[in-house]
This record gives sequence, C-alpha cells and structure tokens, in this order.
Amino acid sequence: MSGNDEPTLPFLRACRGLLVDYTPIWFMRQAGRYMAEYRAIRQKYTLLQICAQPELATEVTLQPIRAFGFDAAILFADILLPLIPMGIDLEFAAGEGPVIHNPVRSLADVDRLRPVEPRDSLAHVMEAVRLVRRALDGKTPLIGFAGAPFTLASYVIEGGPSKNYLKTKRMMVEQPDTWDRLMAALAELVSDYLIAQIEAGAQAVQLFDSWAGTALGPVDYREHVLPYSKRIFERIRLTGVPAIHFSVGASTYLPLLKEAGGDVIGLDWRTPIDWGRAQLGDGVAVQGNLDPAALFYPRQELKKRICAVLEQASSQPGHIFNLGHGILPETPVDNVRAAVEMVHEHSQRRS
Amino acid sequence: MSGNDEPTLPFLRACRGLLVDYTPIWFMRQAGRYMAEYRAIRQKYTLLQICAQPELATEVTLQPIRAFGFDAAILFADILLPLIPMGIDLEFAAGEGPVIHNPVRSLADVDRLRPVEPRDSLAHVMEAVRLVRRALDGKTPLIGFAGAPFTLASYVIEGGPSKNYLKTKRMMVEQPDTWDRLMAALAELVSDYLIAQIEAGAQAVQLFDSWAGTALGPVDYREHVLPYSKRIFERIRLTGVPAIHFSVGASTYLPLLKEAGGDVIGLDWRTPIDWGRAQLGDGVAVQGNLDPAALFYPRQELKKRICAVLEQASSQPGHIFNLGHGILPETPVDNVRAAVEMVHEHSQRRS
Repeated sequence: MSGNDEPTLPFLRACRGLLVDYTPIWFMRQAGRYMAEYRAIRQKYTLLQICAQPELATEVTLQPIRAFGFDAAILFADILLPLIPMGIDLEFAAGEGPVIHNPVRSLADVDRLRPVEPRDSLAHVMEAVRLVRRALDGKTPLIGFAGAPFTLASYVIEGGPSKNYLKTKRMMVEQPDTWDRLMAALAELVSDYLIAQIEAGAQAVQLFDSWAGTALGPVDYREHVLPYSKRIFERIRLTGVPAIHFSVGASTYLPLLKEAGGDVIGLDWRTPIDWGRAQLGDGVAVQGNLDPAALFYPRQELKKRICAVLEQASSQPGHIFNLGHGILPETPVDNVRAAVEMVHEHSQRRS
Repeated sequence: MSGNDEPTLPFLRACRGLLVDYTPIWFMRQAGRYMAEYRAIRQKYTLLQICAQPELATEVTLQPIRAFGFDAAILFADILLPLIPMGIDLEFAAGEGPVIHNPVRSLADVDRLRPVEPRDSLAHVMEAVRLVRRALDGKTPLIGFAGAPFTLASYVIEGGPSKNYLKTKRMMVEQPDTWDRLMAALAELVSDYLIAQIEAGAQAVQLFDSWAGTALGPVDYREHVLPYSKRIFERIRLTGVPAIHFSVGASTYLPLLKEAGGDVIGLDWRTPIDWGRAQLGDGVAVQGNLDPAALFYPRQELKKRICAVLEQASSQPGHIFNLGHGILPETPVDNVRAAVEMVHEHSQRRS
C-alpha cells in the first residue's frame, strides 16, 4: 500500500484520521488465555513453541478474529521474542512471567549482544505474518508489533518484570554510554524487526512502551527514551504503513509520545479520550481505552461504558476502539463478543 | 492550634500556602527499612508489635528526625492497622506483604465488621502520638495519617495487594449497596481515627489513596470514591488542622482530588510540580515529588534533580518537598541526609 492511496478497511482509515462507517475495534492481547481455543493449544505447547511454529502462531492469531469479528488481527508473539537471537537467555517460568538468566548490566554485557537480521533469525515470525495475511484474505488488516526500547531494556536489565525499575534507571543515569549503546541496539533491532514484519505483510504496527510511562516522568522520558523510540518511528514512516504508539501512565507527557512518533497514540484506561486529545493536539489519531475490568461487568454497565468512550471520541474522526491495557486472562468471552457488537452498533455514522 | 493563627514551623506554613524561609522536606515512609536503626528494632519485633507498643513506635518515628533533620515527623504505623479492631484478620507474611484471611466480599461480610472507637481500640496509636509530640518538643511538627477508603477497601476486598483490582471494581459496580456500606464504614473509621490522632496531638494529617489513581479513571473516581474521601476531609477541616491528600497515577483528574479535599495535594514522581499546579488551579498547596530512584544516583545528579523540583515549584509559596512515592528499602542513608541539606540550602529565601 502506498501512503497516498486511501485505504478502505475501517481500522486503516481510522489510523489515518479518515471518516469511517463505524469505529473499528480490536483488543490488546486479544489472542490469549481468556479463550478456550487458546488454552487448548497451550496445553500442548509452551508460549515460545507457539511463537516458533508459524502454523500455531497463525492459528492463535486468527482465533479471536473468527470468534468475535475484531476489525484488526494482531500477530501472536511476545515482545521479548526478538531478544532471543540477540543472545538473551529467556525463559517463561510457569506462572511467574519472563525470567532472563543473563541480564545486561555493563558495557561488556551490551557488547556481547549479537546483531540480529530478523528476516533470518526471526524468519518464523515473518512466515506467520505471511500465513495470517493469506488466511485473512484482505478482509481484516494485520497489525505487527514490537516492544519499545525502554520497555525491552527494563526486562533485559532487571532480568524480568520490575516494581520500581531501579536497575534500569540507575544504568540510564550512571552509565550513559552503556545505556546509549543498549538503547541504540534495541532501537535498531526493533526497527529492523518491524520493517521485516511490514515487508512480510503487516499493514500497521504498534510499538508497546507500557513501562516507560509507568516508570518515568517527562524529563527522563525526553532525554533518555524519546530519541531512541523516534528513530524507530522515522524508519517506519518511510514504509507508508501506519504506526500506533502505546504507553501506560504517560498522561503527563502525551505530547512527548506524539513527538517520538506514531500516527495513533494509545491512551490508557485512566485517560479520557477527549482529555487525551486536548493534550495531544491535532494531527494524530487515538486508540483506547475501555477499562479491561469493564468486560467483567453486567451487560448494561458494559454498554454504558462503551458508549461513554465512543461519546468522548465522537467529536472528530481518528479513533480506534480498544482497551486501555491488555485484556485480562479470566475475561468472559460472551462480553468480548458483545463489546465488538456494541462498538459497531453505537458508532454507526448517521449521515 | 486554631486555624486563624499563623503557624511558625515551615512545614505548617507551607501547608497553608504561607511564605517560608526554606522549603520544608519530609519523605513518605521515612521511618523504615532503609535505616539500620530501624532494621535493628525489626530484628526483635514484628511490624505489628512495633505498632502496638507506643515506646517502640515513638522510637522508630523519631529515628529519621534525629538522623536527617526532616521538617516533619510522620507517625510510624501501617495504613491497615485500624482495620484490625474492625475484625479484619490481618497478617504480614514475611516478604509477601499483607494478607487478609477474611476478605470482605458481600453485604453480610460488611455487616460483620465491628464499629471502632479509635480512642479505645487504637489507644496505643494515640499514646504514640502523645509520646512523639512530647519528644519533639514543638521543634518538629508531627503528621498523623490514614489510608483512604478506596485504598483500604482494595486490601479488604482483594485480601492483599492487587495487580488489577478486579474484585474491588466488581463490587463497586455490581454490588453498589455493599460498596456504599463498606466505603461509608471505612470513611467513618478513617475520620474518627484521624480526629483521634489530632486530639492526641497530630499537627497535620495525610490521607494516602495511592491505589485510587492507580486503579481508576476520573469517572469511577468521581462517582465511587470522591464522596467518601470528601466526608473525611470535611470532618478534618473542622479541626483547623491541615490535611494532605496523596494518590499515585491520578494525573488525569487532579481537580477531583482537590474537590474531595485537602489543603495540600501530593503529586507523584511523573507529575511535574508546575504541570500539576496548572491542573489544580489556585487555593491548594502541593507536595512532592522527587523520583525515589534519584536517591540512588550520584550526588551531582541528585542535586540536579532536587534543584529541578525546587525550580518547578518556585513560582509561588505552598510547596512541601517530598518524594513522589515512598522511599525505597535499599536507599543509601548518606543521600537522604544530603537531600535534606540540599533542599534547605537551595530553597533559601533570598529577600
């Protein structure tokens, strides 16, 4: 797709801020544990095995499209996946989240990281992209994705999830050369990885920087994170494919997220769409932001909250409906199906 | 102290938005694990034992005042303490945080909670307040504190700390009568508890609602939380003692925190003081908000960040220096001492 042609699929139109017949909807982590079809596959394969086998990754990616009719598919993968060919020794311990056995703490650790050619060493991901695109047959667009440099750095430095990101922040401040080399390497990896996904067929990409807004205020973000994320968006922009930029808790510096890049800014569930747009100013679309907990509420309450998000966003085009963070593992599937229908029904263009 | 007399201590003056000779500083969780003196006491006593023995609570409260010269003491206690006489079966499991063995999930559970007269059943806390006041001898003011209804409710409903507050939110939405009765009971408990602390000698109080901003957006906060916190601040206001209102992650609805109440609004580390003041408008002081991680950085960097906070706050009086969240357990004490000196030195009134 050239950047000058007007797309027809609602999701791709909304990314560009174009008028749509109804608001497109997809959910972060929409392929996953809340679906019985996914749990059935996970009984036989680990997370990394599913990611490594394109047929399995394809099947899991398609499950929520078939079940609920989302307006975009997102490739099933883990944000830590591209770290493995770099030499990161990653394990998903049962019930404990990711563990990295060789965390990066020094310049020597960074220098040991291997350069990655995603077309080769992540060929299974690109094959999954091609298989999903073929299966979707042009009816539903496919989103590729990657973790942003800060969020990835926090895992490789801390050795897993973190509460206060202290080791990450200390490297950022106390070892500026190490930080720069690590962030630069991650920015290059992520750019190459996303571009490889686009070449394989991804029609949009999302950069997940959940932990930047959780950990950092605007001054640190601007100085130590923004320049690296910006490199990625600058390279994506050349492809003509729309990019979504998502963080959590970055509400005091949404303009900096916009400055880093992205055609669409994802807003968390505590950031009203109209409030967020006022912070962001013009020239960017928004995505979000139903509280993931709302999918557990009674149907009438769910409807009220979905309509409230649509109403907040209704003043102008350029809104993609989503959750304000990833879907929760125990979410009732009937409410997911209802949510997709409600968003479509209550956002119909009346003109 | 009557509300009409001008206080002389810098902390109390800053609470009122009055001019000060230097910016007063204290740290959330300033009495605690980062101090060797505290760890020595914890080797012999559990957290709850320290809280139950006024002499021990007094000693621990005074340790950071003696060591670092903070401009305010804050009573050593745990926000969950007043739940115990209500009938909440609370345990601090080693290294795991609080566990509540009889979580509140139904109207019947709420009705089983006992009314609490803090002057009687929390007499040990009031005795500690009196002992601390006597020891401080008018030179350093004492802050009393309590957890806010939402934050306390989240513990009693979830049974401990939570990642997504799903049970709490579901009760809030699906069992409005249960929620109302629980929140009303907690608001009454917290009001009575804070007023008893004030009667015993607390010269200011802080309401901690850390998890409200973490969990909820503005619509839920306004409807399900604000009315209960407001009841507390209305009762505190009658005492003439200043109140501080602190949450984390509530940056999209700081005006609602102000509406709920408090002479001072505490800002988290991601919310620049000037940005926060612009959101809040006039008529309220602010507290904050150095990133707790900054206390681990090299001295020069620490100084830079302290001066940045002071600079952001310098346009008008009514600023209390603090961290943007509680001090971290491994914080080097030398940097704490240096921070107090830096804040005093770099905020001297030049007129």
